[in-house]
Amino acid sequence: MKAAVLYSGGKDSSFQAVMLERLGLDVELYTANFGVYDSYVPAKKSAKSLGFKHRVLEMDTEILDKTCDMILRDGFPNEGIKYIHAQTVEKLAETHDIIADGTRRDDRTPKLNINQIKSLEDRHNVQYINLDSFGHKSIKLITENLFEISKEKSNRDTSSDFEVEIREMIDAKGANSLDIFPEHYQTRVIGYKK
Amino acid sequence: MKAAVLYSGGKDSSFQAVMLERLGLDVELYTANFGVYDSYVPAKKSAKSLGFKHRVLEMDTEILDKTCDMILRDGFPNEGIKYIHAQTVEKLAETHDIIADGTRRDDRTPKLNINQIKSLEDRHNVQYINLDSFGHKSIKLITENLFEISKEKSNRDTSSDFEVEIREMIDAKGANSLDIFPEHYQTRVIGYKK
Repeated sequence: MKAAVLYSGGKDSSFQAVMLERLGLDVELYTANFGVYDSYVPAKKSAKSLGFKHRVLEMDTEILDKTCDMILRDGFPNEGIKYIHAQTVEKLAETHDIIADGTRRDDRTPKLNINQIKSLEDRHNVQYINLDSFGHKSIKLITENLFEISKEKSNRDTSSDFEVEIREMIDAKGANSLDIFPEHYQTRVIGYKK
Repeated sequence: MKAAVLYSGGKDSSFQAVMLERLGLDVELYTANFGVYDSYVPAKKSAKSLGFKHRVLEMDTEILDKTCDMILRDGFPNEGIKYIHAQTVEKLAETHDIIADGTRRDDRTPKLNINQIKSLEDRHNVQYINLDSFGHKSIKLITENLFEISKEKSNRDTSSDFEVEIREMIDAKGANSLDIFPEHYQTRVIGYKK
């Protein structure tokens, strides 16, 4: 039973990967890339530190472009991030039977609602698994117990979130991505706790 | 990190127990009992077969009584089952910090909605975990891989569902519980798959 997990190297998607592996699934991790910057490198390192196979999910640059236009139109990232996440999940569903991501019960965005989940599962004949079972406190508690986690200023070499390539393209469009995404700290899984 | 899982011996609550254990929690299983019939016995056997500690959660008979009145009023069990489940989760929350049950994404009843979950967590300062991450297909796939499962005609000695004591009390009230709960088959976890 193979499961493909959408993976950023963060604690949520690492939690999902480990949970499914420990439930008996053969887990492969996928990080989306839109051809603008090799932002999957930190995720690949995290995957390796946990002993998982890691692959790059090659996505159309056009989707990133549309995402950036949505974000620049809105002045904030929510709708764009929701769109790029949904497109990535769709892509993963084209080639896998069980797909998963690290979205939590109390995430507001990016997140598929129950109708989007049913539609995705029906159209692609897949099973979709997220982290809706858990609130953020439980995930924090369990991941701090499972993982070594690094905390660094978020930049294009410490993060594999969608944000990295979105920033690159927004800046290339002549806008300033710092107006949209303020500087923040980034946590990344760097191995199992000893 | 102790977690108390509401446990019936079925595949869903067994899945929850094993998942939390494999994520590093110290899991204890609790089966509700309302003092009318020792319906926790099958659950205790299932718990033992998986190597978990099992306890009986002693509940007020009054709650069972109210449940039966709701069911007899409605002519079907949904609202009553929802009520008795919610009351049991509340009871568990009084004495534990992390509580969990085996309700799934596509269960309709018994199930706490997101507002009930938030209220429960805030009032008792607890973390609540269910199986909303998973659809029934994923749970079926994973549990068939994990567990030996028996399938028997449901009766008071093969099941630890709320239904057993509800039936006893409905019949004691002079109604016929078979009008409400038709005969059906009952699956129960009897050990790990070799």
